Amino acid sequence: MSLPAEPDQALAASLLAQLAKQGHDGVGITRDSYGAGENAAHALVGAAAESRGLEVRRDAAGNLYMTLAGRDRTAPVVMTGSHLDSVPRGGNFDGAAGVVAGLAILAAWRRAGVVPERDVTVMAVRAEESAWFPVSYAGSKAAFGLLDASALELCRADTGRTLADHLHAAGGDPGKVAAGIPALHAAEIDCFVELHIEQGPVLDGSADVLGVVTGICGSQRYRHATIRGQYAHSGATPRSHRRDAVVAAAMLVTALQRAWVALEGAGHELTVTVGQCMTDAAQADFSKVAGRVNFSIDMRSRSRATLDAMDAAVQAARTEIMQACRVDIDLGAVTSSAPAAMDEALQAMLANAAAQAGVAARAMPSGAGHDAALFAAQGVPAAMLFVRNANGSHNPDESMRLDDFSRATRVLASVLGARSGATLSTVS
Amino acid sequence: MSLPAEPDQALAASLLAQLAKQGHDGVGITRDSYGAGENAAHALVGAAAESRGLEVRRDAAGNLYMTLAGRDRTAPVVMTGSHLDSVPRGGNFDGAAGVVAGLAILAAWRRAGVVPERDVTVMAVRAEESAWFPVSYAGSKAAFGLLDASALELCRADTGRTLADHLHAAGGDPGKVAAGIPALHAAEIDCFVELHIEQGPVLDGSADVLGVVTGICGSQRYRHATIRGQYAHSGATPRSHRRDAVVAAAMLVTALQRAWVALEGAGHELTVTVGQCMTDAAQADFSKVAGRVNFSIDMRSRSRATLDAMDAAVQAARTEIMQACRVDIDLGAVTSSAPAAMDEALQAMLANAAAQAGVAARAMPSGAGHDAALFAAQGVPAAMLFVRNANGSHNPDESMRLDDFSRATRVLASVLGARSGATLSTVS
Repeated sequence: MSLPAEPDQALAASLLAQLAKQGHDGVGITRDSYGAGENAAHALVGAAAESRGLEVRRDAAGNLYMTLAGRDRTAPVVMTGSHLDSVPRGGNFDGAAGVVAGLAILAAWRRAGVVPERDVTVMAVRAEESAWFPVSYAGSKAAFGLLDASALELCRADTGRTLADHLHAAGGDPGKVAAGIPALHAAEIDCFVELHIEQGPVLDGSADVLGVVTGICGSQRYRHATIRGQYAHSGATPRSHRRDAVVAAAMLVTALQRAWVALEGAGHELTVTVGQCMTDAAQADFSKVAGRVNFSIDMRSRSRATLDAMDAAVQAARTEIMQACRVDIDLGAVTSSAPAAMDEALQAMLANAAAQAGVAARAMPSGAGHDAALFAAQGVPAAMLFVRNANGSHNPDESMRLDDFSRATRVLASVLGARSGATLSTVS
Repeated sequence: MSLPAEPDQALAASLLAQLAKQGHDGVGITRDSYGAGENAAHALVGAAAESRGLEVRRDAAGNLYMTLAGRDRTAPVVMTGSHLDSVPRGGNFDGAAGVVAGLAILAAWRRAGVVPERDVTVMAVRAEESAWFPVSYAGSKAAFGLLDASALELCRADTGRTLADHLHAAGGDPGKVAAGIPALHAAEIDCFVELHIEQGPVLDGSADVLGVVTGICGSQRYRHATIRGQYAHSGATPRSHRRDAVVAAAMLVTALQRAWVALEGAGHELTVTVGQCMTDAAQADFSKVAGRVNFSIDMRSRSRATLDAMDAAVQAARTEIMQACRVDIDLGAVTSSAPAAMDEALQAMLANAAAQAGVAARAMPSGAGHDAALFAAQGVPAAMLFVRNANGSHNPDESMRLDDFSRATRVLASVLGARSGATLSTVS
């Protein structure tokens, strides 16, 4: 693999270490969206980019852009990056790894005097985690002028202060964001390639180090579903007289598992999760047949048709179980997000670069959502490169090996180089 | 059916109405064990008995005994009665109906000059409902000198004050109760026959008005069971990598239902209830595979062998599901109570009396626990007569028709009369 210059792995290691120290909350890492944690991370990364001669700017939403200028400043820009916020008590790599990787590449190119054909920009996106504000992709949506003005009035879960208030305190311009004035235009972007740790166990349990993401799952969700049966004396009520919400919930969960297995057997890719399922804390008792269960369903797939097929199975199970158990099942409001396909040319480039570097990689979907999905939805060719990681994400035990990260950074550099005309054309 | 005198239905109706007024809490009926509600009910009923010429006494635990003296004061006494406390926001009939029925019978006999061969006593038992103090049958246990001294230090769920404190304030003698000095001796009791509303829907949904109880179920309970799996990202974790506590719980509930159906098919009588089943409120999320579920299992049957067979099914399901779902299932501490058989001669007398009175009755088990079980466990011939009741018990919607109650009271009077030698021998 030919690179215009080797990524600055020492810089990457140093930044990751500083971010870990800065963000440590006593248990894990907390970089709160539009709060002290995220602000500090943006300051640290922005200063590092500036001191290494990259162009640094921030948009009205506080997103940070670190650019190595190309020969043609008007040509569509090659973008990489990810987010710098974390969930509360999360890990150090979810998000930050993608920003640090981009910066390690551009800092090295700048030092080596590499001048690509077109601009290459690392974007540090704000507020990707919806743990803080109940909105997804707030930062990247705002960058495209797509954040609904009403979202600025949403309150942060912990502080109770609005997004507008937090953004203003972080140096942003809520009025400009509310007005929908974009900082990014799809037509001016060549591509967006996001490096990110894998948040599941697939790579960690295999021989593969990297994942080339085929698509980012869309979702179909019933976040607040309810089964209503009838509370009754557990000893005095025969089975034939029961309207048992727990039994109905068990049948529903079992039916969804069966439908999932059947759809996978028919070639569909999806996940189906009942993550919350609870009898009423105040009314339920060990000596009562349960009259109520609240639950959630989260379905994810890269294919809208698969989501529709699974949703049909949910509806069929609902109807059948309402009859069989004489209960009411109210699925509540549905929320959904569209699946995002990753650009095939970029996928091929990433796979080839990995193969050339001798790094084992596999094609895989992303079950989690990412800013890259928002770029893709705007028509920007987008791609993602997953790095294997133990113990999942959103917890203090995230565990990415630095040599895996280095290999991923080199693969990313190769694609950014090829895409921006920085390969060989500037350095042999 | 020949009765020495017709029960005083007007007294019964008046007492039930006064109890309802006195105990109304704005929503339902609250007669708190060893508190203002139960104390007021005991005062009301005791005063009514006294004013009608019955002997009234109270024991150290505050249980109330209302006696029509027989010719032979040393002969084993015929007893009836039930409890006067209720659950919070409960109904008016659960417990009180049995006390009022007994008083309506003895008041009428006293007025008619009936003198039975032996004493007949209506007992108003204290603290039958374990909703207040976490101990079952506190009143009747104390009457037999069987209440463990440590139980006096248990705190009431709402007040936080000890049972000893409450008992003392209600005029009782905690020291005597703690010393285990009995007010009742099994050898001095001919029988105990308890009238009670049915707490389930069996009679209400049938043509039968009365139930002659065959036995009071024992129980085998896991009140605090836990499934531990692993929290994981709902989108990023394939099914093969999951250790899903909700799926395991669903499989367990389904397996218990199957085992219940199979045992019933093999002729066993039992109930099996998972009344509580809940993911962790703090950690579970719609976008996480659930890592923990807390649940309860309540098994009840008149047969210890049936409970053992069902328990074996629970254990087998546990082992199988722990393997299949790669979770840990900790059933926690088991609590159990022994089934109590009702006296066959008394059952036959109740059934015959109902038949003679032309009141449709059926034999049926009691899934709920009652003081009669404690009498039976002491070797006292015991029986129960259920009166049909809509909407179950332990709620404000209990609904017993007064004419059903009157018919039940006449059947009870017939058996008490036969047993005490009050029939025909005194009045033709």
